[in-house]
Amino acid sequence: MTNKTANNVGGIAADRLRSIVERVERLEDERKALGSDIRDVFTEAKSAGFDVKAIKQILKLRKQNPADVDEQEMLVDTYRRALGI
Amino acid sequence: MTNKTANNVGGIAADRLRSIVERVERLEDERKALGSDIRDVFTEAKSAGFDVKAIKQILKLRKQNPADVDEQEMLVDTYRRALGI
Amino acid sequence: MTNKTANNVGGIAADRLRSIVERVERLEDERKALGSDIRDVFTEAKSAGFDVKAIKQILKLRKQNPADVDEQEMLVDTYRRALGI
Amino acid sequence: MTNKTANNVGGIAADRLRSIVERVERLEDERKALGSDIRDVFTEAKSAGFDVKAIKQILKLRKQNPADVDEQEMLVDTYRRALGI
Repeated sequence: MTNKTANNVGGIAADRLRSIVERVERLEDERKALGSDIRDVFTEAKSAGFDVKAIKQILKLRKQNPADVDEQEMLVDTYRRALGI
Repeated sequence: MTNKTANNVGGIAADRLRSIVERVERLEDERKALGSDIRDVFTEAKSAGFDVKAIKQILKLRKQNPADVDEQEMLVDTYRRALGI
Repeated sequence: MTNKTANNVGGIAADRLRSIVERVERLEDERKALGSDIRDVFTEAKSAGFDVKAIKQILKLRKQNPADVDEQEMLVDTYRRALGI
Repeated sequence: MTNKTANNVGGIAADRLRSIVERVERLEDERKALGSDIRDVFTEAKSAGFDVKAIKQILKLRKQNPADVDEQEMLVDTYRRALGI
């Protein structure tokens, strides 16, 4: 009976809902911790004399297909010349 | 001839490109100015003693269908009771 | 009296609150319309054969100090060579 | 010698840079996997008949101080009554 009450509040499977909410919170905490770890690596990079903005650009480039990167850069250069910038 | 050069740099219709870029920049400037106007209204609201966070919640609610808002609030209340929060 | 009622619901200057909310909504509508105008320019650019992603990169570059752009590009190139990418 | 070359390309400590870049990429991959795990829990919640939007609201409320939540809700209700919504 007690169990039934715990599991069913207002027609809601309370234990199931609680489990879902707590799992998401745990995963979000882990994700937040990773975000903090990433910031730590960038702090280390900066201390070692690297430019963080340039490293972020490198990370972005590495996510893309090298041929696409080249083609895009060529296009941007063409547009810059056309605009005289 | 000069015109042709101005209009065609590296196979690019330079004038057309410049027009596009400048129009986007102008629109972005106007959009940025509106963002600043909105912040000004919130500053005025705060000065008049209103709670800005609550006003933002009101704005969010007004974007939604009233029946949907009610249904959602009822669901959230049910879940809160089920979780005892 | 009626005016007083209209202006004061639950200790809240209702007319003032309504004016604030409606002004923000109007400004948000205008901002939304500008966003739509910007998308229209990009659609036009695409129809004219331009690469929208490259134009967005151009817009980003134009927001920056040219000397900073050059320095950043040099750094990224140095890092790319160091990593062999 | 070879080691020296590998470690120093254009005045850049290449190995150090590579280590930094690869660590960030690994952390980003883990973070992305957690995002996917979170989405899986929401999919499970939906399959179990829960309303995902309401659960997200619950998660948001649980991040806040209960007294602040109550105060905010009271304010929003007051504003709604003042505006007749």
